[in-house]
Amino acid sequence: MTMADISRFPIPDIDSLPEDIKARILEVQSKSGFVPNVFLALAHRPEEFRAFFAYHDALMEKESGLTKAEKEMIVVATSGLNQCLYCVVAHGAILRIRAKDPLLADQVATNYTKADITERQKAMLDFAAKVSLRAADLQAEDYERLKRRGFGEEDIWDIGAITAFFSLSNRMANLVNMRPNDEFYGMAREPRDA
Amino acid sequence: MTMADISRFPIPDIDSLPEDIKARILEVQSKSGFVPNVFLALAHRPEEFRAFFAYHDALMEKESGLTKAEKEMIVVATSGLNQCLYCVVAHGAILRIRAKDPLLADQVATNYTKADITERQKAMLDFAAKVSLRAADLQAEDYERLKRRGFGEEDIWDIGAITAFFSLSNRMANLVNMRPNDEFYGMAREPRDA
Amino acid sequence: MTMADISRFPIPDIDSLPEDIKARILEVQSKSGFVPNVFLALAHRPEEFRAFFAYHDALMEKESGLTKAEKEMIVVATSGLNQCLYCVVAHGAILRIRAKDPLLADQVATNYTKADITERQKAMLDFAAKVSLRAADLQAEDYERLKRRGFGEEDIWDIGAITAFFSLSNRMANLVNMRPNDEFYGMAREPRDA
Amino acid sequence: MTMADISRFPIPDIDSLPEDIKARILEVQSKSGFVPNVFLALAHRPEEFRAFFAYHDALMEKESGLTKAEKEMIVVATSGLNQCLYCVVAHGAILRIRAKDPLLADQVATNYTKADITERQKAMLDFAAKVSLRAADLQAEDYERLKRRGFGEEDIWDIGAITAFFSLSNRMANLVNMRPNDEFYGMAREPRDA
Amino acid sequence: MTMADISRFPIPDIDSLPEDIKARILEVQSKSGFVPNVFLALAHRPEEFRAFFAYHDALMEKESGLTKAEKEMIVVATSGLNQCLYCVVAHGAILRIRAKDPLLADQVATNYTKADITERQKAMLDFAAKVSLRAADLQAEDYERLKRRGFGEEDIWDIGAITAFFSLSNRMANLVNMRPNDEFYGMAREPRDA
Amino acid sequence: MTMADISRFPIPDIDSLPEDIKARILEVQSKSGFVPNVFLALAHRPEEFRAFFAYHDALMEKESGLTKAEKEMIVVATSGLNQCLYCVVAHGAILRIRAKDPLLADQVATNYTKADITERQKAMLDFAAKVSLRAADLQAEDYERLKRRGFGEEDIWDIGAITAFFSLSNRMANLVNMRPNDEFYGMAREPRDA
Repeated sequence: MTMADISRFPIPDIDSLPEDIKARILEVQSKSGFVPNVFLALAHRPEEFRAFFAYHDALMEKESGLTKAEKEMIVVATSGLNQCLYCVVAHGAILRIRAKDPLLADQVATNYTKADITERQKAMLDFAAKVSLRAADLQAEDYERLKRRGFGEEDIWDIGAITAFFSLSNRMANLVNMRPNDEFYGMAREPRDA
Repeated sequence: MTMADISRFPIPDIDSLPEDIKARILEVQSKSGFVPNVFLALAHRPEEFRAFFAYHDALMEKESGLTKAEKEMIVVATSGLNQCLYCVVAHGAILRIRAKDPLLADQVATNYTKADITERQKAMLDFAAKVSLRAADLQAEDYERLKRRGFGEEDIWDIGAITAFFSLSNRMANLVNMRPNDEFYGMAREPRDA
Repeated sequence: MTMADISRFPIPDIDSLPEDIKARILEVQSKSGFVPNVFLALAHRPEEFRAFFAYHDALMEKESGLTKAEKEMIVVATSGLNQCLYCVVAHGAILRIRAKDPLLADQVATNYTKADITERQKAMLDFAAKVSLRAADLQAEDYERLKRRGFGEEDIWDIGAITAFFSLSNRMANLVNMRPNDEFYGMAREPRDA
Repeated sequence: MTMADISRFPIPDIDSLPEDIKARILEVQSKSGFVPNVFLALAHRPEEFRAFFAYHDALMEKESGLTKAEKEMIVVATSGLNQCLYCVVAHGAILRIRAKDPLLADQVATNYTKADITERQKAMLDFAAKVSLRAADLQAEDYERLKRRGFGEEDIWDIGAITAFFSLSNRMANLVNMRPNDEFYGMAREPRDA
Repeated sequence: MTMADISRFPIPDIDSLPEDIKARILEVQSKSGFVPNVFLALAHRPEEFRAFFAYHDALMEKESGLTKAEKEMIVVATSGLNQCLYCVVAHGAILRIRAKDPLLADQVATNYTKADITERQKAMLDFAAKVSLRAADLQAEDYERLKRRGFGEEDIWDIGAITAFFSLSNRMANLVNMRPNDEFYGMAREPRDA
Repeated sequence: MTMADISRFPIPDIDSLPEDIKARILEVQSKSGFVPNVFLALAHRPEEFRAFFAYHDALMEKESGLTKAEKEMIVVATSGLNQCLYCVVAHGAILRIRAKDPLLADQVATNYTKADITERQKAMLDFAAKVSLRAADLQAEDYERLKRRGFGEEDIWDIGAITAFFSLSNRMANLVNMRPNDEFYGMAREPRDA
């Protein structure tokens, strides 16, 4: 693989990057053992890089009524609907890790209505799918359905905002033709302990 | 109008907000004469507010091969396709101002292929519409078409990234049921000088 | 603007037109202060012109259970869904006048589900949207829903027939590439009295 | 069959109708041997009846660069795309008569791209299909394609206007749940002379 | 008509075919008076021919909770939705024969929701339409609706499996551009005895 | 996992099955180490089971201008477009094995236009996608495009017929809610030798 495979736009040399961006990249590399290509592809525009990851962290890292696995389900399900290869493969790996389940990500990416998830989680993904594909049609009943499943107002914001953020992310990945790192495909696929 | 009309989520009291957010809101108020509701609605989540406007500014305020009016055309055209009332009305006003043209925003929001714009600008909006509605189908030919119209690689990133950002923004506005301020509707509608 | 901007088909000289058509055009000019382009564009075919306006008047001018503003809401909402620039802009102006509301037309054109209208009017526009976009799927329940909102059988015919007529009108406007007169854009946009 | 089967709206008694409408109905009855239900269903609203048939005649009866069979092909093809039972069955019969071909109507209604028609006629129906289903996307190239097949500007108006008129007609038929007369189904189905 | 009109792929000489296929073709010819083109077109691939008709017979010939006419309704309705000319015309003829009704096939092919069928049969076709067009969205409620109409589990399998088989068949017919025999169009169109 | 998880219809006891079906199931079990659920789910109907696998083998096992990996690409790509969980997961595993590539299946299932395949294979999948999603629109140009890429007429039949067969298969899997065996998810995911 060459740099040209990662993105159709230029990939900056890591050493030429602003210190904060370089630090973020080295941190993720030391934690994951490799640099996910989204960091390299978006580093082409440092200001946008900073805003992207600040937004990402504000949604994905903070305490929430949703578990980290549930947040990744939203990402994987809506990225599947948007046919975004990078997000399905990279966040599929993260979902397997977060959910400690080697099967869930492929299920959610292909057809979340058939996945091994709770009815509550299906309602969550129904709402996310609607925000992703036809947000203009959201109506009072959609919010009520989530509340009947025990989601609070802040949870609803989280579901919608994560979906909205990955609507941006899916489009950036397709715009730059972002290639998922080979490492993601096989991560966390070892069978569950019975 | 009450606060409840602005968003289905709580609107914080401005004085209770972190200093940087409060400052940003007061600045826009002093410049525009009113506070656009997007600032109030998103202030419900300060971290996300900061990332949202940092991203916005990185794309919309920086120097670029696109004029400021062209950037707003992208926003208005794709927000029209997504039936996002807040973005069509608020950015429609900004487009009238930037383009010094009272007719253009309604044209672009309703059907950009009939708007009084150049063939180059139509190609730009064709690309933006594809990123907005079916980014997964982008192919080499779509980029080539822009290049034949004189757009460079950085311009293409700008077109795609602005579209991607407003894909997020349109979904947030529909999620919170964001109401455009009444002031926007009539702004900059005085006839052009002949 | 030249004649060529009004329609892609020839625009007849007013003095060459049959007397009844000429009279109709002069009447609307004296009432509005200008000749809406639909009269000039359709005058290319006098027989069709006569039938078009006879149909229009039979639906839009007669007494009805719908107010004149409600009829225009139907026109603007369905023309927005059909991305018909002429009808959105021209009937948007008429809606602002009929409803004495400077905001309503832009709301209804962009996303009527977010407009400042009653639940009854939303039900009316839901039915109109279905007639416009997928009339073949109309079923008993759609009519029942209108009746529960207080609409009678004749009102239902009116809603459906106005929608059907503007399905024709939207297609004619797009076929001839009909340009809205500049005058329409800014009409009746002065703020409501509080 | 009872009157209630013809339309979900009331069917007036023929003798109670205005003289001109009564005369028109009796004339078609004497010519066809029965009264096509569209005359009975639309007579519920005499003003609209008059405009409807005036418009119909202006398009379908006048001299044109299109043959009468070609006009009916447009009606049948677009009514098939709109799943309009009345128009497919009634105009299918008329097409069989006009084209002196017992097979053509079923072909055109089901999938005109597989019908026994000329390439020129396919181009005509491609244009009609676009006017019917997504007129907002019409562009210069669509008109050029017709011209390369030998259609003139007036022919293009005819194709588009007939399509637009039956967009209205299809919606009215679905709105009133108009039932095709049983007589239409079997008309003109005798085999062609070899 | 020449062989080339039947399929875009080669049509084998009947005498050159394996005995079992030849026998099947001669049997249908002696029963119908002609050889339906599907037998000629698919004989190009004997193994696939055998599997196709074995599958067809397993579904269409066996005893079932559905009548033979109901099975043909499923074929005609879903083939209409898929715009498959061969299947609409050939199975339309079979439906007229099975149902002893000259009108039903055209109704079901054009818009089954307007056809002269029972509410139970409409529910059956709603399910078939969903299996044909968006099977991935099937949910528990769809099966429950059929059960409330008196369909058992085996009936549901039949409805779904017939639809699935003709999803294959429709695609094969379009792939090879299969032409319906002229004989089918006019079969069984004589009026019902009153 | 219980039997109920495999299908919403009954799963027969293997020993109660006809000898030929039992033999086929034991053979696949001895080869794969487990019984893929499609064999158990379809054994509910022995006649249909036999036809299904005879059709499958006629297409997938025979000599062809397509490689076995290419055939599986068609299955995985179209099953992804149809959101069929069973087929994506089971045939994804087979594709990894046939192509000796651990990444390809996830790429093809999510968005084949971004997969590591040749331009010729992309053309093959473009054709398959059209057969799967809108076969009625196939036209001469679609076949020409394949021929320019070196595909012969028999290859085109293979591409189309495999797609048609899995259009059936995808619908059956969704109809019975067929669950992929857990074993498939992780098969053949070991990294390629560099």
